[in-house]
Amino acid sequence: MAIDAVIPFKPKNPKTRLSCVMEQEERETFARAMLADVIAASCEGGCSPRLLCTAPYLHPTAEVCVDADGLNESLNRVLSAASSPLLIIMGDLPLADGAAIRRLVSTEADMGIVPGRGGGTNAIFLRHPGRFRADYYGASFLKHMAIADEAGLSVEVIDSFRLHTDVDEKEDLVEVLIHGRGEARRCLQSLGFVLSVEGGRVGVERRTHKETL
Amino acid sequence: MAIDAVIPFKPKNPKTRLSCVMEQEERETFARAMLADVIAASCEGGCSPRLLCTAPYLHPTAEVCVDADGLNESLNRVLSAASSPLLIIMGDLPLADGAAIRRLVSTEADMGIVPGRGGGTNAIFLRHPGRFRADYYGASFLKHMAIADEAGLSVEVIDSFRLHTDVDEKEDLVEVLIHGRGEARRCLQSLGFVLSVEGGRVGVERRTHKETL
Repeated sequence: MAIDAVIPFKPKNPKTRLSCVMEQEERETFARAMLADVIAASCEGGCSPRLLCTAPYLHPTAEVCVDADGLNESLNRVLSAASSPLLIIMGDLPLADGAAIRRLVSTEADMGIVPGRGGGTNAIFLRHPGRFRADYYGASFLKHMAIADEAGLSVEVIDSFRLHTDVDEKEDLVEVLIHGRGEARRCLQSLGFVLSVEGGRVGVERRTHKETL
Repeated sequence: MAIDAVIPFKPKNPKTRLSCVMEQEERETFARAMLADVIAASCEGGCSPRLLCTAPYLHPTAEVCVDADGLNESLNRVLSAASSPLLIIMGDLPLADGAAIRRLVSTEADMGIVPGRGGGTNAIFLRHPGRFRADYYGASFLKHMAIADEAGLSVEVIDSFRLHTDVDEKEDLVEVLIHGRGEARRCLQSLGFVLSVEGGRVGVERRTHKETL
C-alpha cells in the first residue's frame, strides 16, 4: 500500500521572500509548479500525495484537506489521526526526485528526517506517526531530533541535497535553474529567469519579454 | 587499493568571505579543521588523501604536493599524470562523511559529481582521469557536465547534502554547528560561535570570552 505523503501548501500569497523578483500571481504560479514537482516525486517514490492546504484549493489528482490553523496544529491533528506510516514533505522542494524519497521512506529507523538549509526540516518519514509531534519554524531540525529522542524513536538523517534544497529566496532560484528537471524550472524559464555569472558568483536575472526576443 | 583523493588546500589567508567574523589566523585554523574533517571522511570512504597546496604545508599523515599555479592548472597536471581512478574533493566540506564518499566512488558511471551550492562543484570522481579536465570557478558544475559530455563520459550526479554544503560565508556556519560532527564544529565552538534564532531565522553569533564565562 502506498504511504501517505502529506504536503502542506499555501495557495494564496506564498513565498513572500520572492516578492523582490515576482508579483503575487507569479509567486502563486511558481508555488504550484514546485508543488507539482513534489507531487510527481512523491508518486515516483511510492507515496500517495495528500495536500494539507491553508485555504480551499482544487487539485486534479491529489486529495485535498483544508485546515486554516497553523502548520504545527494542523500537522499534529493529522499525526494523531494516522494509523499507518506517514511522510510529511514540504511543497517547496522542486529538486525532489523519486530516488531520494524512496531512500527516505525505506529507512529502517522509526523516523527518517531530511534537514533543510538553515536549521529547518524539509521532510520527515514516521513509521508510527502517533508517537511524534511536529514543531516547525526556527531551528526545527534540532527540535524534531529532540522530540524523537524523548519519544524513544530511532532516527536516520537522510543525506540528500535534492530534498535539502528548499526555495525561499532569489538566490535559491539558481539551484532550480541548474538542477531542476520539472515544472518549477520550466515556470522560471517562462517567467524569463536566466543564470547570470558575475565576478565568479552565479546568480539569476530576469529578462523582460523584449530582451528575450 | 585505495583511491587517491586529491584535496586542494590554501593554507595562507583562506576563506576571506569569513573575514567579517574571523581574523586571518582564526580562518587558517578553521580551514585546517575543515580539512581534517575532509581527510577523515576520505579515509573512512576508502580513499587515500593527497593535499594539493598553494604554499608549503606540513601535514602529519597526508601526502602533500605544492603547486603555486592556479587551481585548474595544477589539477589538470594531476589529472594528466594519473593512471588510476581519482577523486577530487574540496577541503571546505566539513559535513563530509565516509558514507557519502563511498557512494560517490562506488558509482558505476565513468564520472560521479557532487554539485556545490550556487553552481559550483564540490567533488568529482573519475574512473579515467586522463579523459577529463577541470574548469573550476563560476558555474563549474555546468561546465564539468559539458566537458564530460564532450569526452563521452557517463555521469552520475550524487545526491548528498553533506558533500553539497561548502562553507564560504557566515550563514554557512549554521550548517556546521547543526550538522557537523568533527573538528570544524569543535573549532567554531572554541571560537565562541553559537546558534541564534531571531524572527524564526537561524543564524550564528559569536560570544566573546567574557560572555561565555
